Amino acid sequence: MYVFSRAVNSLHSEDIKLLMKQSSKKGLISFAAGMPNNDLFPVREIDEIFANLDHETKKRCFQYGPTSGYPPLIKSLETMMKAKGMAMNSNKLLITTGSLQAISIITQEFINEGDLIFAECPCFVGALSVFETYGAEIKGIPIDAEGIDIAALTMELQRCKKRPKFLYITPNFHNPAGIIYSEKRRKQLLEILSGTGIILIEDDAYGDLYFEEKDAYLTKPLKTYKGYDVDIIYTGSFSKILGPGFRLGYMISSEEIFEKAETIKQALDACTSNFMQILANEFISGGYLQPYLCLLRKEYAQRYDLLAASLEKYLPAEVTWIPPKGGFYVWLELPSSIKATDLFADCLARGVVFVTGRTFDPESTKDNRLRLSFSNMPKEAIEEGVVLLTSVIENHLKNSTLLT
Amino acid sequence: MYVFSRAVNSLHSEDIKLLMKQSSKKGLISFAAGMPNNDLFPVREIDEIFANLDHETKKRCFQYGPTSGYPPLIKSLETMMKAKGMAMNSNKLLITTGSLQAISIITQEFINEGDLIFAECPCFVGALSVFETYGAEIKGIPIDAEGIDIAALTMELQRCKKRPKFLYITPNFHNPAGIIYSEKRRKQLLEILSGTGIILIEDDAYGDLYFEEKDAYLTKPLKTYKGYDVDIIYTGSFSKILGPGFRLGYMISSEEIFEKAETIKQALDACTSNFMQILANEFISGGYLQPYLCLLRKEYAQRYDLLAASLEKYLPAEVTWIPPKGGFYVWLELPSSIKATDLFADCLARGVVFVTGRTFDPESTKDNRLRLSFSNMPKEAIEEGVVLLTSVIENHLKNSTLLT
Repeated sequence: MYVFSRAVNSLHSEDIKLLMKQSSKKGLISFAAGMPNNDLFPVREIDEIFANLDHETKKRCFQYGPTSGYPPLIKSLETMMKAKGMAMNSNKLLITTGSLQAISIITQEFINEGDLIFAECPCFVGALSVFETYGAEIKGIPIDAEGIDIAALTMELQRCKKRPKFLYITPNFHNPAGIIYSEKRRKQLLEILSGTGIILIEDDAYGDLYFEEKDAYLTKPLKTYKGYDVDIIYTGSFSKILGPGFRLGYMISSEEIFEKAETIKQALDACTSNFMQILANEFISGGYLQPYLCLLRKEYAQRYDLLAASLEKYLPAEVTWIPPKGGFYVWLELPSSIKATDLFADCLARGVVFVTGRTFDPESTKDNRLRLSFSNMPKEAIEEGVVLLTSVIENHLKNSTLLT
Repeated sequence: MYVFSRAVNSLHSEDIKLLMKQSSKKGLISFAAGMPNNDLFPVREIDEIFANLDHETKKRCFQYGPTSGYPPLIKSLETMMKAKGMAMNSNKLLITTGSLQAISIITQEFINEGDLIFAECPCFVGALSVFETYGAEIKGIPIDAEGIDIAALTMELQRCKKRPKFLYITPNFHNPAGIIYSEKRRKQLLEILSGTGIILIEDDAYGDLYFEEKDAYLTKPLKTYKGYDVDIIYTGSFSKILGPGFRLGYMISSEEIFEKAETIKQALDACTSNFMQILANEFISGGYLQPYLCLLRKEYAQRYDLLAASLEKYLPAEVTWIPPKGGFYVWLELPSSIKATDLFADCLARGVVFVTGRTFDPESTKDNRLRLSFSNMPKEAIEEGVVLLTSVIENHLKNSTLLT
């Protein structure tokens, strides 16, 4: 098989080398890691759930379970998805060991070496890493503030010599771009894909994490839209709404896609941990999830507000971004004279890090962007981090002006 | 990619169909499932461990961890493996989501569609399922009471048109054959593979489960043998010594093999559950594992003794088996006039099930064997199960005599 080492833990490998050199340094302010906040995990709730499990259920935690998933968890998720408008009678749900495993299974199901995949540019680096590991050719389609660029997609569809097997997108609170697809763009996309036989992979890892309740309706899954002839595989994750340490995700697809996916999962890890599935199921069915989501939305919104205030206060006007309505990320655009990779080295020396834009570029080249993650950030460090970042950016701006 | 659906949960698919039809029937005595005993899981110990975790460690349970594994667990396992004679300075350990994931990773690392794998015949069905999913050609090499048949292996090595990428074996308490490789056979095998470039996969899922302390030395990993030029990948599992619900395993290999394996794992599920790894690490480092193993050895030995006594008392002399010294399985050999598949249907109707021999045959044909698993069996059901099995076998023997 084809194996290519892209990024381990969401950082470009060269950034990692720099980071390793510097890792002894204390007090590094990190906007890099796209992970939930350690201090926000529902530790007390899971303690309570574990303490209240009856002995028979506890024994079940230790045993093998069905490859497709722990039946009560499947049921709880189906109920959740129905509430989001998903038709669960015509779809099948497969529990996976994290949603990355779902992406891996889908890739193994559809991709042979050399097959073409369309992805957004920028794109979630974990997915790029999977696609590359299985030898796919990836074509990045640009996105803007409202979603994938329809003109660019249309052109690439006409231009490409082989039909892409699927298009992979993250319509809600995109990683790294932070944007959410507009209703209009969602429909345009489905219209274009309709009847082409190109499968749409809809990664919804962040959909529950809007900052404001009034924006909830914006996150409606594309898989719930009626009247289009598009085969959509929806992937969901517990990583952002419970904890990545549970390694729990799921995929929702047609029965045909599900059956092959189940066989592949059987050969990957037989089944997902019953222990983790049972705790997660109690978390949903015991009524813990919704209040926890309310807390998370408030906490992440506060962190974003602090970050946005600092960015507005300090950053030079040449640096721009689209304000996100949810999720974990701010995606800065730098003036063309500055490269994110050059900034990274200097920022690291000053004690602040981020992820460079090229990490998320299928071609690993575009370097005028950088991703700031505010999710796992102590509130009190945000302003200092922005001040440090700003000073480095200003230095680079000054130098580039001197050079011209 | 190549996808072939062999067996879900260790039963031949046609057996499953029969079993599904009958599943409404209460009181089925099952010698089928190769899983640990529900009543033996260390529920109390894990309760205690969970209750005693400090808050910081609990938070860590929820978070992402390194792809290679939770560092303290790697350390605990390294200490364990050193005690078994493994040189951990020249080897690297990768934590996997069950040892089946290790087999899957190794297969993905070395196998392209059409590549040749040598496996034992019979062979662990989960491994066969993985090899087939990735499109390997599998050649089964027979085993006898002392291990792989050296003459047959030598002949196949001379006969095969392409070099096998690896040989996959389970030297300790084989699934399904129950045997353990003799010291002589281990050395003969290493001698033959030496210098051929054929990698040896040593699956040691059952090595800790000898019935008698005096037999412990028999389970010494082949990877600890000195003086042979064979690249060995050792796989270990927590499924039989803690619980399959944890989905925890590991592989030990050269650094070169490890590095590619880590990249593949990164694309499979990013990392294994920190939650499960932290509990498992406390189970080892807190001193719970060794006493628990002592208990398991005693319990499984008792179940085997009960089963052996019933088999000796009831079964006709034409049915034979090699007494296992550990593990979960008794591998019955039937007279040539009887097919295990025919027995299966009748046994199911009588309320007792097992796994047919052909399930474990890479070519899915050899049908004169059946596997009885005594691990997850209530002690009081063993004799009744054997009586039912015997009556069906005797009927078939009588019929086959009438026909001749």
